[in-house]
Amino acid sequence: MDPHRTVADLGEFALIDEVVKQVADGRHVLIGPGDDAAQVSTECGSYLVSTDLLIEGRHFRRDWSGAYDIGRKAAACSLSDISAMGGVANALTVGFAAPGDLPVQWVIEMTKGFVAECDLVGAKLVGGDVTASDKIVLAVTALGEAHRPVLRSGALPGDVVAFAGRLGWAGAGFAALNRGFRSPKLAVDAHRAPQPPYAAGPQAAAIGATSMADVSDGLLADAGHIASSSNVAIDFDSTRFAIADPVATVGEALGVDPLTFVLTGGDDYALVATFSAQTVLPKEWTSVGVVKDGAGVTVDGAPYEGPPGHEHFR
Amino acid sequence: MDPHRTVADLGEFALIDEVVKQVADGRHVLIGPGDDAAQVSTECGSYLVSTDLLIEGRHFRRDWSGAYDIGRKAAACSLSDISAMGGVANALTVGFAAPGDLPVQWVIEMTKGFVAECDLVGAKLVGGDVTASDKIVLAVTALGEAHRPVLRSGALPGDVVAFAGRLGWAGAGFAALNRGFRSPKLAVDAHRAPQPPYAAGPQAAAIGATSMADVSDGLLADAGHIASSSNVAIDFDSTRFAIADPVATVGEALGVDPLTFVLTGGDDYALVATFSAQTVLPKEWTSVGVVKDGAGVTVDGAPYEGPPGHEHFR
Repeated sequence: MDPHRTVADLGEFALIDEVVKQVADGRHVLIGPGDDAAQVSTECGSYLVSTDLLIEGRHFRRDWSGAYDIGRKAAACSLSDISAMGGVANALTVGFAAPGDLPVQWVIEMTKGFVAECDLVGAKLVGGDVTASDKIVLAVTALGEAHRPVLRSGALPGDVVAFAGRLGWAGAGFAALNRGFRSPKLAVDAHRAPQPPYAAGPQAAAIGATSMADVSDGLLADAGHIASSSNVAIDFDSTRFAIADPVATVGEALGVDPLTFVLTGGDDYALVATFSAQTVLPKEWTSVGVVKDGAGVTVDGAPYEGPPGHEHFR
Repeated sequence: MDPHRTVADLGEFALIDEVVKQVADGRHVLIGPGDDAAQVSTECGSYLVSTDLLIEGRHFRRDWSGAYDIGRKAAACSLSDISAMGGVANALTVGFAAPGDLPVQWVIEMTKGFVAECDLVGAKLVGGDVTASDKIVLAVTALGEAHRPVLRSGALPGDVVAFAGRLGWAGAGFAALNRGFRSPKLAVDAHRAPQPPYAAGPQAAAIGATSMADVSDGLLADAGHIASSSNVAIDFDSTRFAIADPVATVGEALGVDPLTFVLTGGDDYALVATFSAQTVLPKEWTSVGVVKDGAGVTVDGAPYEGPPGHEHFR
């Protein structure tokens, strides 16, 4: 490799591939890097673990979101990873760095947000670390258990693709905030604190989901991870997506096709999963596509020409 | 509380206390916040988890340490927490943020450092997260198991206090680097990558240690955590500490009593533990003090008048 190559040259996902090449399997490692969470065996069982790193100004802004919502969102993005494995989270740790002039009250409100989000799944904040930094940094590790973890790699041609939760709400809210609006409130609030469909993860595992991921980077991007891990193609049917009112409102105000938010907006922490065509989907899940032979993700049979999903360093 | 009070006003440890007040116990939580690691129960067992957050410029400097050593040190500071519970680590996750212009080769070398340090205890790098930031951020979570976790809170009057590993080496190395020296190599290398006595943690648990902590903030500071958690006093006997050559050399060069490095220097990730007076200590452990009724930490019966241990925000 070119010794002068930078992480920005390589990009987030290729960088992760380079890092993973350095890592060997181990007897404790049931599921290693590359899925929503890892699974590690213990003397008599196993646990799931997933880490997310959130940096002020990149993942959240204090002028857009209050401390409570920032805590909720930071917890959600890791708890959702456990759900996306078909698991139930039981613990969370938080590494917290902040400038010295941050009010203590802000930290207390943020902690309440962490606790409130953890309460939704029955997890507890069990530990962490505190240090000083110029910008707020939140390193969140969620831990949990799954009877039968659902990987990204199990999708099969002929499966249906379905999602649970919201799509496009947080993306629309982000777009509105980014253009200086503070409304529509439902969209902006969705950006501030998502509402992941936590219970739909274990539910999907129980009814035999063949693959699953959470939607943090956008539906097309995260379905793309399933497609590449499973060596399949995924095609979405755009007519299957209902556009929620707040998403339509933002689209209209900004002159953007609201389907763009649905297909490429991140941060709602919806779940996307594949199921055999015979599976009767519970009401939480909406069938929106099919798995095919091939590679890549298409919409109505063609590459989608909207903006790409989020990729750090780019 | 004064609503304008800042985290710097409060300081690291009081801030942690405020955060912990917001956190409720849970049925999964066998050991909650406040020890070296938390312990969470699973369906048929339990795991230990500890998170550390390292920020470039505060915990490491790229002009002082290479990428490989930074990876080793970051892994060590979390793996050491598992050892300090009497446990054995089996997995590590790393949240990594970096500026886009960082060479990919740097990240690969850092990852090799993580892997090498994990290999010392048989742990594996199982997952993580990658994002962009102005400065390098490393969020390390170590996971493991212990048959009988050793808390900070079990020290009893009459116990002996002992340590395993090195004391003062990294602190002396830091002092040397901070004054523009690049030697003595052994001290500077100890700052760059510590050599925690990983095996001494489970060993101490097996022979009945009543309390244990790792020395990350300095012996007096970390013994202070044992004293306050156990509601006891600890007195060290300064004549029991052998001053290693590199530590003595730095003391001489900088005109500092080398005992200061031994008692207050952090980052060697030694272990400090208490044992009943009847315990026959293995050679890895050196008896250096006693547990008494009372509160606080003294040296030769008096408060130690050296510089305090490290405290973030101050």
